[in-house]
Order: sequence, then structure tokens, then C-alpha cells
Amino acid sequence: MKIETSLRINEVRLQAHIDELGKIGLNDSKGLDRITFSTFDLQARQWLIEKIQDLQLNYQIDAAANIWTTLPTTNNLAPIMIGSHLDTVPNGGKYDGALGVLIGLEILTTLLENNIQLKHPIGLVSFTAEEPNPFNLSTFGSRIVTGKLKKSNIEHVQTANGIPLKTALASAGGSMEAIESAKKTPGELAAFLEVHIEQGKRLLNQSIPIGIVTAITGIYREEITIIGEANHAGTTLMTERNDALVAASKFVVAFEEIVRKDPSDEVVGTIGQFAIKPGAPSIIPNEVKLLMEIRGDKVEKITNIRQQVDAVLNQLERQQPIQTHRTIILDQAPTDMDETIIDSFKKAVPQEDDYLLMGSMAGHDATHLASITKAGMLFVPSIGGKSHCPEEYSRIEDIGKVSNVLLQAIFDLDNILDKE
Amino acid sequence: MKIETSLRINEVRLQAHIDELGKIGLNDSKGLDRITFSTFDLQARQWLIEKIQDLQLNYQIDAAANIWTTLPTTNNLAPIMIGSHLDTVPNGGKYDGALGVLIGLEILTTLLENNIQLKHPIGLVSFTAEEPNPFNLSTFGSRIVTGKLKKSNIEHVQTANGIPLKTALASAGGSMEAIESAKKTPGELAAFLEVHIEQGKRLLNQSIPIGIVTAITGIYREEITIIGEANHAGTTLMTERNDALVAASKFVVAFEEIVRKDPSDEVVGTIGQFAIKPGAPSIIPNEVKLLMEIRGDKVEKITNIRQQVDAVLNQLERQQPIQTHRTIILDQAPTDMDETIIDSFKKAVPQEDDYLLMGSMAGHDATHLASITKAGMLFVPSIGGKSHCPEEYSRIEDIGKVSNVLLQAIFDLDNILDKE
Repeated sequence: MKIETSLRINEVRLQAHIDELGKIGLNDSKGLDRITFSTFDLQARQWLIEKIQDLQLNYQIDAAANIWTTLPTTNNLAPIMIGSHLDTVPNGGKYDGALGVLIGLEILTTLLENNIQLKHPIGLVSFTAEEPNPFNLSTFGSRIVTGKLKKSNIEHVQTANGIPLKTALASAGGSMEAIESAKKTPGELAAFLEVHIEQGKRLLNQSIPIGIVTAITGIYREEITIIGEANHAGTTLMTERNDALVAASKFVVAFEEIVRKDPSDEVVGTIGQFAIKPGAPSIIPNEVKLLMEIRGDKVEKITNIRQQVDAVLNQLERQQPIQTHRTIILDQAPTDMDETIIDSFKKAVPQEDDYLLMGSMAGHDATHLASITKAGMLFVPSIGGKSHCPEEYSRIEDIGKVSNVLLQAIFDLDNILDKE
Repeated sequence: MKIETSLRINEVRLQAHIDELGKIGLNDSKGLDRITFSTFDLQARQWLIEKIQDLQLNYQIDAAANIWTTLPTTNNLAPIMIGSHLDTVPNGGKYDGALGVLIGLEILTTLLENNIQLKHPIGLVSFTAEEPNPFNLSTFGSRIVTGKLKKSNIEHVQTANGIPLKTALASAGGSMEAIESAKKTPGELAAFLEVHIEQGKRLLNQSIPIGIVTAITGIYREEITIIGEANHAGTTLMTERNDALVAASKFVVAFEEIVRKDPSDEVVGTIGQFAIKPGAPSIIPNEVKLLMEIRGDKVEKITNIRQQVDAVLNQLERQQPIQTHRTIILDQAPTDMDETIIDSFKKAVPQEDDYLLMGSMAGHDATHLASITKAGMLFVPSIGGKSHCPEEYSRIEDIGKVSNVLLQAIFDLDNILDKE
């Protein structure tokens, strides 16, 4: 069943909001510096609160400083929440996070101005500290809400400069004392819907305006230390060497080949940290410590890569008398998005438009929300695939299409979730 | 012509000296800490001066704090000098450098106690600061003597802790003010002869007790920067990446293959420094800076490797949109040892013993002396190929054989150099 309603969001107003919010924290490089709990982050939060107040809506700031608002309803159903985050990385862009919040705001505005009241309360949430931040706590707000971060994990956290999280949190209206009061239990939310820029080029390369996220990537990180033998770089014959850098380089090349061999776009692998010892011009390196990251939309795909990595390291150990030490740093399983929501998204795509079912290769607040409610995500094409930089950009025509898919899906979900 | 004299050095006395000097600077790891101008280095220098005085010989400390002594003669010929150095790397061994000085001392002692007076004055020199040291001036003494280091290069040098070279030099009897008075001109020395441990395994692997050095390795160092593109390690597809670490790793593997392909033992190549940027788990590396070192006994061999490196980097640039920046850090040509001296060494090897003609893959004081006089070097096998470590060890039977080759060669050279 295609949804028939012809209601559309207002693209001009949405673009105006993107541009207005995009001025808060603007630096000389035309990037945004809305780092968590910075003055500019607090200004952005205040801007949002004023927009909510302009709609004559109430808002709540929970103990994690997340900002919540819902349209009033006459029944007791759990709300369908739309949300994302307002903070940015240093020198970030104006779409990552902000877009999901502004689309939520636009949908609430559209419903209000058309006097549409659905069965479920429809709400907007802006989560605190989604990006990597000086407290080393990304997706902070959504992890507090889903009970994944507890008071005991965070009460003594501070920045490298000694600023306590407790103090910074209070400046945004949160409370370390009451932090666990922000936790929601399954059933408190009917659904969580997030729109985000893709941050990649898959939609762009295929000229598809709408991405429907099927799963949020699993992330596996392992620290691998390769031990060889240090020796004089002049007097040690090539055949007498046990060069840790040579072995590690063979590993990097093999790892790249393994990951590229996977025919799906939903697996990537990166070695982002790599340090050698002793690091002198005339000494053969005796140690390389590297951090291997594998991301994939299915556990089986990550496991498959890991098994091939095991084989490569075993082979290297047979070729050269290296020793390897391996430590798992992170093993976060992929998170499937809710099938009901995916179906509603599909139905909401107009016949003239195309959509792509795709994994999200970056983590998002929706990853955590999925543990307590039905969660769904839509992606907007990123021009140039760029994100976390001043060049981050998405076209309003794509944003409009995705926003309207979200709006129509909400109408559908409002019916479906009630029946389930 | 084989030299007939049956004179031999005293191995027992030589071993006693090795052990006695090997106690100065001994640390808890059984290594030696006779770092340049350290208290232990000064103690070792004092020990040598006392040994010279025990022989009733005069000595001179030049402005570079090199210690010189010669047996008295009745003619005005330039001296044939034997020498090496007393300083060690941190936690070094008791053979590297010290052995060459102690063999010189032993030969002077043997000549004296047998009342042998040759036509040339036979002398001993102990050069200051041969090893890498806190002043970043290895082969300091021999470079001053050969005019390769000038006052203007060194007068403001200090350690990372702010100790001026001038002060340290004065503590060992040198003088920054007079430093260029230590320079010798061609003709002032008839020859320079240095015995050193091999620091490799070539003699050992072939069970040959005597190494005759034909050339001292050339050293070429180049800093290569490989620039790719930083990007999100999750959302950037494998096919969209320009990973500087992957390109650099391919280079390391190719470089190793190129160097190993050279059938001679006289070429080695090492990448001893290698650093990546930005070095975050989730960011594709955009820069690798590495230091490539090539050593070889012939310029042509080094050039050949360099040309293959050029080809590999060009190929990598065609495969991947990297940029490379290259800077030559050091290009020190190989130094041939003097043919007359090599011939005398060969003739001095007893018929029952074998010798190996070999390049020195490490730099030595003889590298510099070769620019102002005929220079020759002999190698003693290193057990396990180890050097610059407490395990550094050479057998007295090998040391004795090499010392006697040196002694017999001096008899020969004393005649030959006079005739030339």
C-alpha cells in the first residue's frame, strides 16, 4: 500500500534553518567548531530550544542534557521520536547531526501548521555529545538513555585539561547526580527515527537520492604487535634479518587485499595506527604496533575477515621468526535496523524515486536506541562523500525527498505500531 | 713474498688488557656505558695514558682530545699509525673500538720488548667520540683530524641537556679554540691501520678468522614522504581510498625485495624510521614519512638500488593517486681501502690460515683517515655477529691471528712505503 497523503515539508524553511544553525560556531576555515559542551555547542542548543518555544511546545532537558520535545496528544501511547545531535567534530560541517535534528523540527512544524494529530505523540530529541569529544565519550547522550553508560563509568571523567564532565554537563542543564534518571526502558519509546548524511559516496555514485539503512556497522578493533629483532642496519646481512617493519608491511598489504576481495560494499578495513621501534636510521626495527579496524554490516563478514587475518599472520610467522601479540580492543556487533520501519520507509518512497538499501559504515545514536526501541535510519547523499570537514554538503532537493519519506513513513508507522 | 719473521704478539697480555679495560663503565646488564666524554669514557682514556706511560713513551692529546703516541725513531719519516676508539654506545660491548686500540698498544709493546726499531715511527692513536653520542657527532676525532669537521660546524654544539661540546671537550684535554690545530695534512701520516670486530656474521659463517677490508660502505639516506588522503575509515569504500600506509607498505615490501635480489653480500637496505599521520583508529592515514638507508661497497651498487626505488615509486604513483616527496639526507660514497696495504695484509696471512676480502658495512674512523693517508682495516670475527650490546664477543685465538697479520704487515709496509 502506498501512502496517499500529499503533505510535504517546507524545503525553503528547512534550508533556512540549516543555514542559520550553520552560522553557530563557524570558524575562519568555514568549518564549525561546535565541540561538545563548548560555548558554540551551548549556543546551538539554545537556538534549538528557542525554535521549540516558537512552536509553543514544551521541552525537557534530561540529566544527560539531551533535549526532548513532543507534540501534545490525547492518548497514552509511547512517542515516535525523531532525532540526532547538534555537536560537531573540530572544523566539522553543518549537516552531520544537525540535519537529523532540523528535519525532526521541520516535521513537527509541518504537522502543527497542518493541524495533523496522529495517534502517537511525535517528538524530537537532540542527543548530547555524539561526536568524539574531549571527554572521550562519543554517543554519550544515547548511551545514557539506553543504559549503556552508567554513573560509575563516568562520574570521574575529565578532559586532558582537567575539566570535569560533571561541570560541563551541568553547564548544558544536565546533572551527574541524577544521570541515571535519563535512562529509558523498552516500551517508553514507540520508535526512534534518525536522518543522517551518508558520509560516503554510494548514493552519489549511483545517483540515488534516498538511502534506507538496513544495519549499522559492527566495529572490530585489534591491536597487533609484531616482534622481530633489532640489529645493526649495516652489518646485518639481508638473509640474517628479522625486520618487524617488513613483516608488518606485508601484513598491511595482505589485509588490504583481503578486505578488497570481499565483493560487498558493506565491509571495510583500515589500519589507522602504526608505530615502529626503535625508530633509528641505522637500526633494523624490532617492533611494530598497529591497530586494525574491521567494519561490516554482518557479524559473519567481520568473522570471515578475521579468519583470513589469522591465516596471514600464521603464514608470516612461518616465513620469518616474528612473534605476534594480539589484543581485542573493541568488538561491537552490527545493529540491524527494525524491519517494520524499513518496510514503512520503502513504502514511503514515491514511485518516481529510487532508494538504496545500505549498511551504515559509521556509528550513530540509532545504534544504541535500537537496544530499547524499534530504530530506523535514512541517509541523504553526501556531495563528494565528504564529512567532518567544512566541505560537507547535501543538496536540499535530496534532503527534501528524504524528509518527505520520513514524514510519510511516520503516518504509516503511526497506524502499524498501534496495531502490533 | 711471505714475511719470515716469527715474532708474535702476547695473547695473554692482550686478553688481560681487554678484560681490564672492559671493567671501566660496566653496568648492571654487563654492558659498557662509556658514552663520549662521560666519566667512564674519561676513565678509559686515563687508563690508556697510564699504559702508554708504563711503556716509557710520550703521548700527545690534540685539540680534538685524540690521544697519540709513537715509538721513537732516528729518522724523519711519517709514522704508520694503528688506532681506533675507546668510547662505546650506551650498554655497548668491550670489543668495538677498544680492540683496535689495545692491539695497537700490544704491537707497540711487542716491538719495544723485542728492541725492534723500524724505519717508520710506529704509533697508536685513540680517536675521540667515534660512536653516536649526545653531541650528534660520531667519528668526531677522525673528522677533525682529516679536516672534515671545522670549528664553525661545531663551536655551538651542545647536548639536548645543554652541555656545550666546548666544555666536554676541555674535560678530556681538548680545546675548541685550537680545534683546527688537530688537523693533519696528506703526508703527515704514512698509513693508518685499524683492527675492528666485524659486527656481522660473514667471517663466522664461513669459519674464516681474518677479514681484510677492501672498502668501507657508502651510506645513502633518503627521507620519503608519501601523501594520500585522510578519510573516514567507516564510510569510505575500499575502492575510494588513497591510503598512504597501504602505499608505503607496498614500498617497504618492494624495497626489501630489490635489496635482497642483489646477489652480493655487500649491499643492504633498511627502513628504520616510519611514522604515519594522523594516526587515529578510524581515519585512513594520509601521510607516511620514512627514512630509507642503502649501504654498499660500490657507488654503482647503491645507484642501481636507487634506480629501482625510483621505478617502484613511479609505479606506486600510477597505481594510486599518492604524491611523493623525497629528500636526500646523506650520500656518503664508499671508501676504498689502500691496495698496497691490502696486499701487505694478504702476504701477512700465514699459509695455514684463510682470509676473506670483504666490505665493511659499518662506518669507521678509517673511512675518514683514507682521505689523507693510505688506510687499511682488518676484521676479527664477531661471535653471533653481535655488537653494540653486552654479548659482543670475539675469541682471543682469532684476535691473536689478526694481530699477528697486522704486525707482519707493518714489517712489510715499513719497507714498501719507504720505497714508494
